[in-house]
Amino acid sequence: MIFSHSDKTLELMSRVQTFMDEEVTPNEALYREQLNHGELDWKKWQVPPIMETMKTKAKEAGLWNLFLPNSDNGAGLTNLEYAPLAEIMGHSLIAPEVFNCNAPDTGNMEVLEKYGTEAQQKSWLEPLLAGEIRSAFCMTEPDVASSDATNMEATAVLEGEDIVINGRKWWSSGIGHPKCKILIFMGLTDSSAHRHGQHSMVLVPTDTKGVEIQRMLPVFGELDAPFGHGEVVFDNVRVPASNMIAGAGRGFEVAQGRLGPGRIHHCMRAIGAAEEALKLMIKRSTSRVAFGKPLVNLGGNRDIIANARIAIEQSRLLTLKAAYLMDTVGVMGAMSEISQIKVVAPNMAQKIIDDAIQMHGGGGMSNDYPLTALYAYMRILRLADGPDEVHRGLIAKLEIRKYQ
Amino acid sequence: MIFSHSDKTLELMSRVQTFMDEEVTPNEALYREQLNHGELDWKKWQVPPIMETMKTKAKEAGLWNLFLPNSDNGAGLTNLEYAPLAEIMGHSLIAPEVFNCNAPDTGNMEVLEKYGTEAQQKSWLEPLLAGEIRSAFCMTEPDVASSDATNMEATAVLEGEDIVINGRKWWSSGIGHPKCKILIFMGLTDSSAHRHGQHSMVLVPTDTKGVEIQRMLPVFGELDAPFGHGEVVFDNVRVPASNMIAGAGRGFEVAQGRLGPGRIHHCMRAIGAAEEALKLMIKRSTSRVAFGKPLVNLGGNRDIIANARIAIEQSRLLTLKAAYLMDTVGVMGAMSEISQIKVVAPNMAQKIIDDAIQMHGGGGMSNDYPLTALYAYMRILRLADGPDEVHRGLIAKLEIRKYQ
Amino acid sequence: MIFSHSDKTLELMSRVQTFMDEEVTPNEALYREQLNHGELDWKKWQVPPIMETMKTKAKEAGLWNLFLPNSDNGAGLTNLEYAPLAEIMGHSLIAPEVFNCNAPDTGNMEVLEKYGTEAQQKSWLEPLLAGEIRSAFCMTEPDVASSDATNMEATAVLEGEDIVINGRKWWSSGIGHPKCKILIFMGLTDSSAHRHGQHSMVLVPTDTKGVEIQRMLPVFGELDAPFGHGEVVFDNVRVPASNMIAGAGRGFEVAQGRLGPGRIHHCMRAIGAAEEALKLMIKRSTSRVAFGKPLVNLGGNRDIIANARIAIEQSRLLTLKAAYLMDTVGVMGAMSEISQIKVVAPNMAQKIIDDAIQMHGGGGMSNDYPLTALYAYMRILRLADGPDEVHRGLIAKLEIRKYQ
Amino acid sequence: MIFSHSDKTLELMSRVQTFMDEEVTPNEALYREQLNHGELDWKKWQVPPIMETMKTKAKEAGLWNLFLPNSDNGAGLTNLEYAPLAEIMGHSLIAPEVFNCNAPDTGNMEVLEKYGTEAQQKSWLEPLLAGEIRSAFCMTEPDVASSDATNMEATAVLEGEDIVINGRKWWSSGIGHPKCKILIFMGLTDSSAHRHGQHSMVLVPTDTKGVEIQRMLPVFGELDAPFGHGEVVFDNVRVPASNMIAGAGRGFEVAQGRLGPGRIHHCMRAIGAAEEALKLMIKRSTSRVAFGKPLVNLGGNRDIIANARIAIEQSRLLTLKAAYLMDTVGVMGAMSEISQIKVVAPNMAQKIIDDAIQMHGGGGMSNDYPLTALYAYMRILRLADGPDEVHRGLIAKLEIRKYQ
Repeated sequence: MIFSHSDKTLELMSRVQTFMDEEVTPNEALYREQLNHGELDWKKWQVPPIMETMKTKAKEAGLWNLFLPNSDNGAGLTNLEYAPLAEIMGHSLIAPEVFNCNAPDTGNMEVLEKYGTEAQQKSWLEPLLAGEIRSAFCMTEPDVASSDATNMEATAVLEGEDIVINGRKWWSSGIGHPKCKILIFMGLTDSSAHRHGQHSMVLVPTDTKGVEIQRMLPVFGELDAPFGHGEVVFDNVRVPASNMIAGAGRGFEVAQGRLGPGRIHHCMRAIGAAEEALKLMIKRSTSRVAFGKPLVNLGGNRDIIANARIAIEQSRLLTLKAAYLMDTVGVMGAMSEISQIKVVAPNMAQKIIDDAIQMHGGGGMSNDYPLTALYAYMRILRLADGPDEVHRGLIAKLEIRKYQ
Repeated sequence: MIFSHSDKTLELMSRVQTFMDEEVTPNEALYREQLNHGELDWKKWQVPPIMETMKTKAKEAGLWNLFLPNSDNGAGLTNLEYAPLAEIMGHSLIAPEVFNCNAPDTGNMEVLEKYGTEAQQKSWLEPLLAGEIRSAFCMTEPDVASSDATNMEATAVLEGEDIVINGRKWWSSGIGHPKCKILIFMGLTDSSAHRHGQHSMVLVPTDTKGVEIQRMLPVFGELDAPFGHGEVVFDNVRVPASNMIAGAGRGFEVAQGRLGPGRIHHCMRAIGAAEEALKLMIKRSTSRVAFGKPLVNLGGNRDIIANARIAIEQSRLLTLKAAYLMDTVGVMGAMSEISQIKVVAPNMAQKIIDDAIQMHGGGGMSNDYPLTALYAYMRILRLADGPDEVHRGLIAKLEIRKYQ
Repeated sequence: MIFSHSDKTLELMSRVQTFMDEEVTPNEALYREQLNHGELDWKKWQVPPIMETMKTKAKEAGLWNLFLPNSDNGAGLTNLEYAPLAEIMGHSLIAPEVFNCNAPDTGNMEVLEKYGTEAQQKSWLEPLLAGEIRSAFCMTEPDVASSDATNMEATAVLEGEDIVINGRKWWSSGIGHPKCKILIFMGLTDSSAHRHGQHSMVLVPTDTKGVEIQRMLPVFGELDAPFGHGEVVFDNVRVPASNMIAGAGRGFEVAQGRLGPGRIHHCMRAIGAAEEALKLMIKRSTSRVAFGKPLVNLGGNRDIIANARIAIEQSRLLTLKAAYLMDTVGVMGAMSEISQIKVVAPNMAQKIIDDAIQMHGGGGMSNDYPLTALYAYMRILRLADGPDEVHRGLIAKLEIRKYQ
Repeated sequence: MIFSHSDKTLELMSRVQTFMDEEVTPNEALYREQLNHGELDWKKWQVPPIMETMKTKAKEAGLWNLFLPNSDNGAGLTNLEYAPLAEIMGHSLIAPEVFNCNAPDTGNMEVLEKYGTEAQQKSWLEPLLAGEIRSAFCMTEPDVASSDATNMEATAVLEGEDIVINGRKWWSSGIGHPKCKILIFMGLTDSSAHRHGQHSMVLVPTDTKGVEIQRMLPVFGELDAPFGHGEVVFDNVRVPASNMIAGAGRGFEVAQGRLGPGRIHHCMRAIGAAEEALKLMIKRSTSRVAFGKPLVNLGGNRDIIANARIAIEQSRLLTLKAAYLMDTVGVMGAMSEISQIKVVAPNMAQKIIDDAIQMHGGGGMSNDYPLTALYAYMRILRLADGPDEVHRGLIAKLEIRKYQ
């Protein structure tokens, strides 16, 4: 049992950190300015040019597609090696895209690399890897409890050479991006198959006839431009049968492989977000004075800082262990640990960010600090990729099984 | 010790509830539509016509200015009698204005009624009571920790016949409203006086030369149109000395009288918000199905409902007791209890709303439900009118004093 | 809605408080000394003579049997009037017996007064009211989950003129007391009746043949001398049919009436215990010095004090409301509120006592302070008279019903 | 970063576990029987013969003195290697002594091995290593807040060839053991030295004239026979100057080295205790039926199990990391992490054991299960070796320092 990173990881951590300090952080304000962040009509969203500049630099620096585990396309990192890099990126909400490591593109790329045909990879994986296009993932539905994924009602039916797609999806993150060209749709193909063999994943270009993006859903009132979270209607959408991923009925199998690493990425970014909040909290509380003392010397503020440190350390170690298990025994062997971190990390970060907001006073509620934006990300993470309740249920089931 | 409301209160509760059911709730969607809620340039904000319609009806129904304690101008209610009415209004974020019971106008009206000269009342109290104009309150400053109000640095200096005002204020709620015509400014007049005798309150028409509203501050990304929370610079603003409220150096005295009832109003609305969240939670969890069962029969969801009920009941009783004490022994005698509810009610409501969001899944994060908007109100309430930490400090001081 | 006590209640509160200060508190140490508290063989337990002295004085002072609601035998108090008296007694673990207001005698006396025949009252109620004997209540069983009371398996079967009793009970509190002469047994009479009509309550003198007290159960290692919590085997115990209370099959009906007031008494004592812990916490933390400051000025200690005050106030008001409802609409109408306080009060007190222990350092863990003993009482209260889980379930059921 | 144990560790874990299963667990009941656990007069305490039998077997099995880090006297294990063994022992309160790995003997042996003279080692270390005698550690004092160790007032003054010791100590754990022959006393030698250079540690045979053990302190009413927690008066106790450990004024230095490993041992045992409670909780809740279902399928019980698993995993990893740091960078380099685990592990275990008690109903409060005894150990651990508050303060100080 060793608790230090390998030299390879340490070197990459140092380079990503330096890039963050020199290229990303100094350009955050410019990015927001160019974004015209408040544009409410998502159809008018544009990509801030500085994002493309940062992406080019990251690519040149070899800090690109780091997330792809054991792949020739990325840096050949294990999940355990990538995890601390994702944490560093998690300090900033715009950083993951800079390194082409942002959800849901990462998950979609993994799916295409692992399950895609050569033609699928040529058409979609390559431009995604190059950061030229963006993608979306359409799974959650408004009309059923998606915490139970087998509830899914939208359909992807094979008709001759075509797959015919119908239904309504929402929380299709990234679908509002001007460069979003492809989406992966998951739907019901064969309701007579066994519970986890009824659904399929299908590649659907966003400009296919019958795909109608009806709106972007706000999160705490924010639309997350230029990505957005779309509500999409599929009305007799037809794509060729060759757009099927992996094979009809293999949707859950593919989803499982997709979600494991994705959850670890989210959790490591959550840890980065928590570290950022802790840093801001300390800076604020040591410099702001009330009742004749810096805030940090008032009431329970030092306890809040200590508790934050303890919570971060614990969830980081558990997330790294989950990554290690995924690398060594696979997603199925790491199932409990992945669910454990999925519960712990966002809750931990939400609490610490809330404490940081409190220590910043009114300013902490405004956009003068990144706190509410990070908070919203953590809050939605407690629902996305499986709500806390479903993960706790799975963990308990596996515990109980030990004694049966 | 009696735990039931008087007939007078019960009758008013019934009428306010009916008005809510028949006039407010059915028009919420129209209000939002008319608001063009997303308009980011606050200078273009307009008042939704339906608001004026609802106000007129409420006035005709005699459900108007109910908040004014023991006053000829309102319904002559005590704080204890008004409290359950504020709770009912708290179910909706737009309701308080409908009844002319919204902050910060309520506090400003109380100040003018209690401390205003006849001329001041004629100019500002009358149109406020009529709901013809809106007002703002400028106290918090960005450059100092306003949790310690004696930190205030902006100045209101007497020069001959004038008061000269300089400084920067923020979180001036309501100042973005198209009808906001008057603000109450609090600033430093005499730094040589005793700690709580240095500051004054001054009436400043918003169109006075030198008053520059620089921006509206977002809360969790939302600007709260058409009210807004402004950042305002006062640059050598001159108003006549007759605009002083109560007298130079009496700012804290006036503020204390203003904040007591205001905190009770906020807390009762918080309780209404919590009840609304509990109602939505139950409706959702009994109708939504996952894993073959309604959500309410899964995991700890019934415990969450039970805990919500327990927390609401307790904080309501404590808030009512604080109102009772304010009515019978005054703000100073109710100091501990007011601070107690100010800590309890927003935290309680924030937790319950968060639980309700979780039970609504992704939808709970969007504007399809009022949950995130209510959440944001509760979150900022933990900072507004004194952060939790300051109130806890006061409660502890009073406890310790009992043994000294 | 009025939040102050009646003059009658205030007068009694003052007299009970004075008696506590003058007679009970000064004799606590003597009581423990006489108890030879550590005697592990319960058969050798003796009643400390000072207890009888205190009882005599309380009786003379008219502070006797105050708990009996609306009865000629007590002070004719309502539950709401008695509640603050129970709170005062709750400051000390020995006080309730001094006033003849201790569980389970109180519940047993209520049952006998309400449901007992004249003969039953003559034999058992009178000496109980006089404080001459003690009693026990045998309901919980070791072999089934007693949180679901219908699980009860011990039997009370009518055979001709006799009731024949068989089975095993535990947590029969008070049965180890040298003066415990009578127990109320609850058992299965007719398993073919409807779910809540199968059980009966029977009076069983403790010296009846076949009643074997096997041991006293420790609570956190303490046996609670001279009362104890017994495990009792009933082996073909025969009592005359006239020992049946209320009638065969009415066990649950009687239990319900018994438990409502009992829960309120427990909860009010819990509030008294919490107040005692808060008092000790403040005295300790203002007088003990570490790192150059009194503890109260270190870290989050003032927050702990403030939170304690807030929690106590809230649970007291809710408990009083439950008492008020029981007085005005009866146990069935107060069901939710009784369950609410049963969850809130012991948990609240357990937390505050734990905080008080922490602030006392090692000493707080020892018997130099009453803290661990109070803690044990609170901890077992979260299980006794229905575990938290069952009460939360009931509260949730009643909430959900509102929308069905 | 590797999250699996070395083969050496795995082999030892297996052997300790087997020994636990075959020798310790089956003899727990006999141990308690022989202990005559309830004997209240500590002077009559005897060592249960089965303990000596188990010790002999453990010694023969080579599972002896495993705790000594990198020492010829033990198994030559690092702290990281020993930690999982301590966890296994933590499942039982009697196991640590079986393996000669119980506090405070472990800490005293470490001190003697690291700082003891040859003569000191000959006299005291050898019989301690052989398990022939027991020892105590006298540091905490009743009259000052020992959370601030520099408060210590008892004195150890050099007078010619002697050290003269005066003062009162308590919580001297183990001093009631029939075989306790030696104690390490820490006291004030030179109040003119710098803050951490005023105190010394001195070896004092327990039968030295002037050493008076006045009583054993109960913990939640239990005396922890046959070890006990003593209150001891030192009245002009004289020992030769050669009994000084390390040198006058080096008390804090020695204490620091002593406490690091000791805290890790305590925390790993806490994790074992939490695992034991989780196991009992699952066994109970899957076999006990209420309302027609096993408890585990009622309410939030599965969430409780899941949360327990998550909390255990996290605190174990953090404790192992602290052990790793102590091995690689020493106590000073591991200061924050040691304080972190000292806060986390006992609180985590206390919560899980409390949940387990609740799931066991009344039985969980009695001695029929080990739960309340484990609970008491965890509760006192939140005070022993530095209360939570002091550790949080240290963690916060180190965090803040990063930004200064």
